[in-house]
Amino acid sequence: MTKEIRVNGFAIHSPVHLSPGLWRHPRDRSLEFSTLDYWTDVARILERGKFDALFIADSISIHDIYQGNADASLRRAVQLPKHDPTLLVSAMALVTEHLGFGITGSVSYEAPYIFARRFSTLDHLTKGRVAWNIVTNFSDAGARAVGRTGVKAHDLRYDIADEFLDAVYALWEGSWAEDALVTDRASGVFADPARIRKVVHRGEHFQFEGVNIVDPSPQRTPFLFQAGTSHRGKDFAARHAEAVFLSDPSQANVARNVADTRARAAGLGRDPNDIKFFSLVTVIVDETEAAAHAKYRDYQRYIDLEGSLALLSGWSGIDLSQYALDDPFPTKKKDNAVTSMIDSFTGAEKVWTIREVVTHNTIGGRGPVVIGTPAQVADALQGWMDETDIDGFNLSYAVTTEGYSDFADLVVPELQRRGLYKTDYGAGTLREKVFGRGRLLPDTHPAARFRAALAELGGTGGEHAA
Amino acid sequence: MTKEIRVNGFAIHSPVHLSPGLWRHPRDRSLEFSTLDYWTDVARILERGKFDALFIADSISIHDIYQGNADASLRRAVQLPKHDPTLLVSAMALVTEHLGFGITGSVSYEAPYIFARRFSTLDHLTKGRVAWNIVTNFSDAGARAVGRTGVKAHDLRYDIADEFLDAVYALWEGSWAEDALVTDRASGVFADPARIRKVVHRGEHFQFEGVNIVDPSPQRTPFLFQAGTSHRGKDFAARHAEAVFLSDPSQANVARNVADTRARAAGLGRDPNDIKFFSLVTVIVDETEAAAHAKYRDYQRYIDLEGSLALLSGWSGIDLSQYALDDPFPTKKKDNAVTSMIDSFTGAEKVWTIREVVTHNTIGGRGPVVIGTPAQVADALQGWMDETDIDGFNLSYAVTTEGYSDFADLVVPELQRRGLYKTDYGAGTLREKVFGRGRLLPDTHPAARFRAALAELGGTGGEHAA
Repeated sequence: MTKEIRVNGFAIHSPVHLSPGLWRHPRDRSLEFSTLDYWTDVARILERGKFDALFIADSISIHDIYQGNADASLRRAVQLPKHDPTLLVSAMALVTEHLGFGITGSVSYEAPYIFARRFSTLDHLTKGRVAWNIVTNFSDAGARAVGRTGVKAHDLRYDIADEFLDAVYALWEGSWAEDALVTDRASGVFADPARIRKVVHRGEHFQFEGVNIVDPSPQRTPFLFQAGTSHRGKDFAARHAEAVFLSDPSQANVARNVADTRARAAGLGRDPNDIKFFSLVTVIVDETEAAAHAKYRDYQRYIDLEGSLALLSGWSGIDLSQYALDDPFPTKKKDNAVTSMIDSFTGAEKVWTIREVVTHNTIGGRGPVVIGTPAQVADALQGWMDETDIDGFNLSYAVTTEGYSDFADLVVPELQRRGLYKTDYGAGTLREKVFGRGRLLPDTHPAARFRAALAELGGTGGEHAA
Repeated sequence: MTKEIRVNGFAIHSPVHLSPGLWRHPRDRSLEFSTLDYWTDVARILERGKFDALFIADSISIHDIYQGNADASLRRAVQLPKHDPTLLVSAMALVTEHLGFGITGSVSYEAPYIFARRFSTLDHLTKGRVAWNIVTNFSDAGARAVGRTGVKAHDLRYDIADEFLDAVYALWEGSWAEDALVTDRASGVFADPARIRKVVHRGEHFQFEGVNIVDPSPQRTPFLFQAGTSHRGKDFAARHAEAVFLSDPSQANVARNVADTRARAAGLGRDPNDIKFFSLVTVIVDETEAAAHAKYRDYQRYIDLEGSLALLSGWSGIDLSQYALDDPFPTKKKDNAVTSMIDSFTGAEKVWTIREVVTHNTIGGRGPVVIGTPAQVADALQGWMDETDIDGFNLSYAVTTEGYSDFADLVVPELQRRGLYKTDYGAGTLREKVFGRGRLLPDTHPAARFRAALAELGGTGGEHAA
């Protein structure tokens, strides 16, 4: 029997996400990407469709591999410009009540104390609807933009990320006890300093000390998303993630990643079902099959080959301008390329040419594109669920906001008829909605061990805020 | 003749700003500080009163000087907790059309590239309503929270700030030409890479390179606020600021600072009237003088001496718990204390005791508290304008949101009757509203020289985005 299907909207704060050129479509609203009207409309549509969250990709990396510069990315707006997504949240939260906000944040660029403050603030303002998609910087362009000479080695990046997470866990879980807030107007006591600890972090990559400057937010640690599919990345996800985002056109690859990461989580003492998996998909749907395919053909009129080559070159670290379009997709791997992405195009199952990859990639990125009636789409999504053990989808679009609203208005009712999709949101924070239990991370999560320091405060004082 | 009076609301993302203890007042809404309902109400009230902007103070510093720890600050919520103010902007922008948002941002904590991106994003989302209040970290607590051993020397901090500003000016003013954006659906060209420059910054304190990841926002460089009153601080303000915020109970001190900073600006080739000065004030107003004073006495019932001592100790760098309340306010100055603040309490005009300073400080911080009828308040504000050559006020509150709404509903109409206050907002960006001319910084501002690099792109290409 198919599990309940969960869906997030997938987006980026840029005119192009995964469908280069589609901003030219007459109904597309991508050029409104820097306006609050656009994002509040997106949020309202997703909440109408009872999506779990809007998941916003981000990085400060610029795609500058194709032809050795950023010209094609600038010309085709390929994830450039790209604005800061954290600043969209409060406006979208104001016009919604339940929708979650999954914001990508890199551990490579800033001090844990400042980062922790930002996400705690968002979790307060949204009353516990914030998720953090944990990423590390993967590009030389991103490293140079913050004054470094180049990107760090892949596994070292994850070592730094592990330490960064320990640092922010200590602030979120180990600084303020649950009963630290008093807020008693009569006595004038706001908080009890004996129930608040200064965090002292002396690590290999980060050193700091301070009381957390933000009192505990509804979820304390925000809901944790991650997207690692390398060996080291799967270890990281198995350890930290509550939800994993996968993007692969192959059900077999996705199924293997899900099983592998769940097994690693179990090996670390976590319940393998404490990680939800969301797979990238783009859906083109209409009332009839003919209308859906006509819609797809209409979208295809706006695809942009140069933009797609710039995007693929950026992801793979390979300058595709050096090859012919009908060459096999090159297998040369750089240490810091998105190796799993290349694997999906060059695996044993099929050798893809650059043209095939580009053609496939031009709408919806690395995920499958599902085209058909609401029933056909529902069948396909059920097939993905059953074959891969995922828990749902990150829904991308060819044309925005149409891709979201078509899904909300046509596919969701069909899924609801089949009993596979919620008819209303659950109560509470994003974590409570997704897992149907408490607002805090379970005791088996590695963040939980930072609570021990608070227990020690006890009645005797312990190391407090002094 | 009195100049037009401009007013900003003054706030902090914390339960206590400048009036410790007043969160206990039955009508006070400070305990709602982490909710969007509170901040959108504030924004609506300020726009109703045609305030220029909401100005939000910030730092990651914790006041931990009093008694050598943060206990009193935690117990009395003295600017602790303190949440990230940048994340409030988009929700407030959604419910307003004209109000500006002056957000404090430190040059001491992060990479210029990432900082520039955040403020450009806000300027886009607000359609040009964002101001940046430039600060440097002033406390050891702030330094330790980001992994440093202590705060840097005062003048060195300003040297670093000067270089930080050059770095962000280069991104805001010198990366994308005005005609770089093409957004032509027919050709599929979004931007012209020949009209976009990579910024290469190789300075003493910062090094980075990259195309600005954000296309030019309405104001490009956000409206620039600053609050320096030391010698080095006045030089910095004279060079960079479009508005200076002063907090001093003495008209003579304010007048001296205004004249001195304007003279320094003129010496740097700027029009001295290209800097607007806003002085801190707290207004307690009611229909009759008796009602206003009764309101003040009612507020005073909620003042918090411990909180006030913690706040003053934090500002001055002097642990006031080591003195008797009737001792003169200590004149011992630490290099990194807020020296100008101490000057205002210990100057030649009057020697203040700690008790007097605390009593004065307990409502409204370091600025004057004006109490009376709308006409009396208008007279007092006119007096300040005429005596000091300021351009307006940063309005703090004893009780929120009452302090803002009383001013908007009682004082503003009186000022309007006197022809001293706008009856409607001007058009355009915050900069256009305040100065009545273009949306960009004038050519005499030091940011303008970074535009020269764009002019060089010309038709021949120049150094472009490669």
